[in-house]
Amino acid sequence: MKNNFLLLSAMLLWGAGTAQKDSVMIRKIYDEALQNGQCHQNLQVLCKQIGHRLSGSPAADKAILWGRDLLQSYGPDKAWLHPVMVPVWQRGKSETGYVIGQNGERTRTRIAALGGSVGCPGGITGELIEVKSFAQLDSLGEQGIRDKIVFFNRPMNPLHINTGAAYGGAVDQRGDGAARAARYGARAVIVRSMTLAVDTFPHTGGTWYADDFPKIPAAAISTVDANALSVRMSKDKNLRYELTLNCRDMPDKEQANVIAEWRGSVNPERIITIGGHLDSWDIGEGAHDDGAGIVHSIETLRILKAIGYKPRNTIRIVLFINEENGNRGGITYADEAKKKGEYHFAAIESDAGGFVPRGFRLDGTDAQLVWLKDQAPLFDPYDLHYFRGGGSGVDIGPLKDGRVALIGLVPDSQRYFDYHHSDQDTWENVNKRELELGAASVAALVYLIDNAEW
Amino acid sequence: MKNNFLLLSAMLLWGAGTAQKDSVMIRKIYDEALQNGQCHQNLQVLCKQIGHRLSGSPAADKAILWGRDLLQSYGPDKAWLHPVMVPVWQRGKSETGYVIGQNGERTRTRIAALGGSVGCPGGITGELIEVKSFAQLDSLGEQGIRDKIVFFNRPMNPLHINTGAAYGGAVDQRGDGAARAARYGARAVIVRSMTLAVDTFPHTGGTWYADDFPKIPAAAISTVDANALSVRMSKDKNLRYELTLNCRDMPDKEQANVIAEWRGSVNPERIITIGGHLDSWDIGEGAHDDGAGIVHSIETLRILKAIGYKPRNTIRIVLFINEENGNRGGITYADEAKKKGEYHFAAIESDAGGFVPRGFRLDGTDAQLVWLKDQAPLFDPYDLHYFRGGGSGVDIGPLKDGRVALIGLVPDSQRYFDYHHSDQDTWENVNKRELELGAASVAALVYLIDNAEW
Repeated sequence: MKNNFLLLSAMLLWGAGTAQKDSVMIRKIYDEALQNGQCHQNLQVLCKQIGHRLSGSPAADKAILWGRDLLQSYGPDKAWLHPVMVPVWQRGKSETGYVIGQNGERTRTRIAALGGSVGCPGGITGELIEVKSFAQLDSLGEQGIRDKIVFFNRPMNPLHINTGAAYGGAVDQRGDGAARAARYGARAVIVRSMTLAVDTFPHTGGTWYADDFPKIPAAAISTVDANALSVRMSKDKNLRYELTLNCRDMPDKEQANVIAEWRGSVNPERIITIGGHLDSWDIGEGAHDDGAGIVHSIETLRILKAIGYKPRNTIRIVLFINEENGNRGGITYADEAKKKGEYHFAAIESDAGGFVPRGFRLDGTDAQLVWLKDQAPLFDPYDLHYFRGGGSGVDIGPLKDGRVALIGLVPDSQRYFDYHHSDQDTWENVNKRELELGAASVAALVYLIDNAEW
Repeated sequence: MKNNFLLLSAMLLWGAGTAQKDSVMIRKIYDEALQNGQCHQNLQVLCKQIGHRLSGSPAADKAILWGRDLLQSYGPDKAWLHPVMVPVWQRGKSETGYVIGQNGERTRTRIAALGGSVGCPGGITGELIEVKSFAQLDSLGEQGIRDKIVFFNRPMNPLHINTGAAYGGAVDQRGDGAARAARYGARAVIVRSMTLAVDTFPHTGGTWYADDFPKIPAAAISTVDANALSVRMSKDKNLRYELTLNCRDMPDKEQANVIAEWRGSVNPERIITIGGHLDSWDIGEGAHDDGAGIVHSIETLRILKAIGYKPRNTIRIVLFINEENGNRGGITYADEAKKKGEYHFAAIESDAGGFVPRGFRLDGTDAQLVWLKDQAPLFDPYDLHYFRGGGSGVDIGPLKDGRVALIGLVPDSQRYFDYHHSDQDTWENVNKRELELGAASVAALVYLIDNAEW
């Protein structure tokens, strides 16, 4: 009994000492991020000197070299390019959309072809039909849809507090709308942009075809145009739409994930991966999506080096390629890991924007989730409060093996879709402190994971 | 024992039922705010049709009538103007600041007179001296300071996670710098803007003189200019500064708090006040400070009416005048309450911007604070997690009587000082959803307080 008591006391003291040491380290990490942070200026270079960088583009090539050189400058043990074959889709020089009235009057709407769409360089014209759901599409059937241009116009639901949930409830229109409408003989689709903002910017994003039906052109229109068009259609049933797209698929090309490795001093065989995706859509600057995650990940290395930390496990920063239209980077990275029999202890992804961090989501074992929740008090001084299960990130998803902890940074979601996949996703719309706090949060979690056992 | 058990079961069931009813009501409140919200468009009118509105200005007169009419349109039992004598300070037509080099070369810096500053229409020139703290000022003494222009340049400390704490640690330079430097014979002061952003905008704010020393002119310069000037001064010890201000005090003027009252159905004598301040500084549009608090408060009335709520206590929406340079509105409101022997049950203020809400601070009794913390689970679905003691708001502060609960909305603080008191504080920098979530949070808390007993 007495021995147990002593043991218990020793354990409690040890626990208190560890918590004390952790809180000092985490304070150092945040101080370094806020006092000497480089992520905001690094993001400026990525956004302004390189700009948007769709997989397969020359800009993506530039971004890969930029990322490797920047990582190298922060002194990892090594940095290298990990070759990945990526799809190449090009928007082409011009794309136009016109609403055509009964007397032939033409009203231009600003459009953006959806990523992966086939082109229609000669233009396609058809009668417009507004559809809010796939159930409605199915009930209209071939009779209602054939030869028409389907206008998918179900708004994201503003009642979701997390805007990601609102996106999840609407994005089927963008991802599968063309494939579903093609079944019934539609000529093309236009899709209301995936944003809760009422703005004049088309927000693009991937669309995916089914193999057993023809591929038809698909483009996004802005929410302002979608609202106006819907009102106009309620008064005039015979509106037509003319869509001209010059986008096309090209042969796959070799690009790369960028990887920097910092070897562990105790368990070098155990790997902690931190990453985001280097590619972006081909409009805007890919600042929040996912330039923020890229500079968060790179800044993690810089911060831990700057405070003199020596990792127990091997830390890898990975700038994944091709998240937006294929996830070839994530898949190739996981394939390689499997082939080499690597032991992945944890992987953290930042791909939800450079907004003020609120916490982390974990996809892993029950023990790992309990561990994550136990870290909450250490993050309380930094206003992080969200530590829950479920979800992580697209790039790290393929690593899932029942053992690795997959973790996603959870920034505040309110403004994310204002910028997402549009010309608005620029460096100017990323706040310096919010970005730095995100980087510090990732670095702090990496430190804690590096000292965890589960 | 059995009876006790039955009683306990009944109480638990009753408690669960109440929590269930509350969570349904709160969901209705957020739904109404997010689906039919009018606060963002109301703020647009205030910012774009009226603009900035310093106490005593014609724009403040317009804002008062706008506020009364808007409140009236949402159907309170009555709305009225409560007269308040306010100070009148005018910036005047032009204000300039030049750094003058040894060979007489002049470099213009953008400036903004601090609110309340005396003018110097003919210009004042003096040798510059950079000072980081009042301790340094005191040690320089009259010998080091007389006839000089003191340049207060201690930055806000970026290591504070809450930017309000960083502001609190630097704002003495703006508030008291002129008074402290005048003791030692300084001719004027220029003060580094109170912001963590490195930007080109001067951020104004109040300065306060001591009665026993002369009043000397005081102006803010931008953080970009402050950094550049500091570097230049480190190389050249003989820089002078020329300051010209046309600002002046005018006689006090009658303006008003705007009050709307919605009588309680059970305890009409018990008053719950919800407010923000209608006045703003005289640059920018007073969008976050405190147009946001004004429209949050007005929206609270609209939301509770829209969902068919009948308050038990009397609810008052108060648009306070003169928070920025005198707090005469808050003081007059509290004086009137005392004179009439009103029973103020709670007062809630929103004066920390239209950013995503994180919770509430309460200044009141222990029981009230315990009550507030007990509400946390009801706010968890809306991502509010901050429920703590200490601080509320300047306008409601004078109501403090040991009985009333004084509560401040706590929005995220990261971006607040980027805009604060500068030309950047415009409607465009207020996000619609973030603003709406703030309004819903205040309305939800009002509902809960209306059903509380402490």
